[in-house]
Amino acid sequence: MKAALSTLISSKTLSPHPSSSSFSRAFWLQPKTLSNSPSFITLIPSKTLTTNNYSRLRLNHRKSLTSSIMASAFKPEEARVPPALPLPTPPVNKFKIGLCQLSVTADKERNIAHARKAIEQAAAQGAQLVLLPEIWNGPYSNDSFPVFAEDIDAGGDASPSTAMLSEVAQRLKITIVGGSISERSGDRLYNTCCVFGTDGKLKAKHRKIHLFDIDIPGKITFIESKTLTAGQTPTIVDTEVGRIGIGICYDIRFQELAMIYGARGAHLICYPGAFNMTTGPLHWELLQRARATDNQLYVATCSPARDAGAGYVAWGHSTLVGPFGEVLATTEHEEAIIITEVDYSLLELRRTNLPLLKQRRGDLYQLVDVQRF
Amino acid sequence: MKAALSTLISSKTLSPHPSSSSFSRAFWLQPKTLSNSPSFITLIPSKTLTTNNYSRLRLNHRKSLTSSIMASAFKPEEARVPPALPLPTPPVNKFKIGLCQLSVTADKERNIAHARKAIEQAAAQGAQLVLLPEIWNGPYSNDSFPVFAEDIDAGGDASPSTAMLSEVAQRLKITIVGGSISERSGDRLYNTCCVFGTDGKLKAKHRKIHLFDIDIPGKITFIESKTLTAGQTPTIVDTEVGRIGIGICYDIRFQELAMIYGARGAHLICYPGAFNMTTGPLHWELLQRARATDNQLYVATCSPARDAGAGYVAWGHSTLVGPFGEVLATTEHEEAIIITEVDYSLLELRRTNLPLLKQRRGDLYQLVDVQRF
Repeated sequence: MKAALSTLISSKTLSPHPSSSSFSRAFWLQPKTLSNSPSFITLIPSKTLTTNNYSRLRLNHRKSLTSSIMASAFKPEEARVPPALPLPTPPVNKFKIGLCQLSVTADKERNIAHARKAIEQAAAQGAQLVLLPEIWNGPYSNDSFPVFAEDIDAGGDASPSTAMLSEVAQRLKITIVGGSISERSGDRLYNTCCVFGTDGKLKAKHRKIHLFDIDIPGKITFIESKTLTAGQTPTIVDTEVGRIGIGICYDIRFQELAMIYGARGAHLICYPGAFNMTTGPLHWELLQRARATDNQLYVATCSPARDAGAGYVAWGHSTLVGPFGEVLATTEHEEAIIITEVDYSLLELRRTNLPLLKQRRGDLYQLVDVQRF
Repeated sequence: MKAALSTLISSKTLSPHPSSSSFSRAFWLQPKTLSNSPSFITLIPSKTLTTNNYSRLRLNHRKSLTSSIMASAFKPEEARVPPALPLPTPPVNKFKIGLCQLSVTADKERNIAHARKAIEQAAAQGAQLVLLPEIWNGPYSNDSFPVFAEDIDAGGDASPSTAMLSEVAQRLKITIVGGSISERSGDRLYNTCCVFGTDGKLKAKHRKIHLFDIDIPGKITFIESKTLTAGQTPTIVDTEVGRIGIGICYDIRFQELAMIYGARGAHLICYPGAFNMTTGPLHWELLQRARATDNQLYVATCSPARDAGAGYVAWGHSTLVGPFGEVLATTEHEEAIIITEVDYSLLELRRTNLPLLKQRRGDLYQLVDVQRF
């Protein structure tokens, strides 16, 4: 195990895009106090979009115009319904993130021990946030999901994978976005990402919203909904390293989810994901860069390492993208831990450079975040 | 002039993405009769989004569930409000498009004659649709916009640029998406794209909706709103080469516009655009590929050729992107005419491969097309 892991650290950090490298860093323009106890962002409980609550929303919406957003005939503040939240001041401006592109086998015990060591190595290199791949405790297949599934809510022995994440997060005082594992809840299975805080407590649990059902004949056909159930809610969480939205793999294809997270004040969206040898080269980097550029925030992804002998062959290429869509760090398909810096001061800078939030046309289009009603 | 134009044809057509080249072409699954007289798509007149018409909308929306879209607990048909229109059967499945990346000078007469010859050359090579660059009849600058502006509605001598487009379209029996020129209307100026049909008639006029006001210190600062007024409506038009949505340059940054066009049944979005030496390398291709991939349609762009001595230096790189985000044809920054094939049968194929429309979560997010109410 030690020998295998000794070569695990092979971070490849790229320089920022040449044409953006000489920009000066902006100050935070409107420092605000963040809650001392990071927690789920408080949202009005989910309900169905009806005429009545739409009306109420519009009223609240009007009231919110006393906010700092400049009103204009184009109603930029109405392009998001409810209106976009201001970007919160993050607890830290700069920190190191670790993306652990892990090899995954059919031996769950080995996978858990392997992930633990990778997280420890990332933390030893200064990572305050560690991201794991999609389905890291067993093979990615409809046959394996039920076999490797754990009861996360029961915890302890019923979920050795998340018990490990909790223990390591608390011991090393780091935040972990724990990739995903298959979760058993009653008679249902989900593809679930758990977020642990520096106290080891479960801060958020994201169940993949958009299941991976695709059919590209002769290339890749996969019907995740054969075994899994889709999640019922977007997931965004305040952590000690900023406000993080969570998506799992295929979730990244639905731009609306990233737009919702942007409007809820996300600094960073983490997508554990296992794109494949067809969609990987076509779309993996493209979608990450598009989500970051359009929403002017950081995007981090983490894939399993490629196993050419596996039933499902992952593309790899875990990546960190900055708010100008610049690839800040990436890797190839082998096992690797990327350690790289996130600098949230770039968020305000890019939003000043390109004031898209103030330029949107709420008089022409409105994205409704149904559960934030 | 002839000498200059003799080298104008320097198309560089790329192969489709290697990993997608072996896909077979799909049939149109649900052939439908298209109106014999292509025209503006009939939309309910623009009005303010109110509780009352939202209620009416929801009612119509429910009725529309008798359509072929499969209802599900996730309400994919509600992810667009009103619901997305089915993709119309295009009048042609395959045709050649010409992207005329023109050099532009301060001599309007020369620019008009130059554009005419380029369009003639594109048509001679088989182009049934010709796209011109943003602001092709004079320099791109706030000083020049008023000087080169034309009264398009008055026509004739008041608008020699569009008179030429009309004459050429009719004579050559082609559709022209006429890039853009500055338009004078009363005491206002707009950045306006005119679409001419094969009969030479003006089919649509798009006034740039999102004005280019950006400030990247030391790189690029431009405030288009100093002289121009923003348009008030998205523009989508049925032509003899399919249903085409129009955006001008900075409009491409606002993903909502492309989403609206997708939901209105666009086969193709044309973006005349003059990105610059900062945002060009960062975002030009990225945004085109993202809009095409996310909305599963074709995207065509056309830039002026680069003039390193100009006040505003354009990036060039006019491009055609397919519905998988694949760059089908592109060029560098010199003057060029790209002639390449559009194959609309790929639209149904890609939407069958990745059935994003049926997988969206209308229970979680809804994009409202305000003017389609």
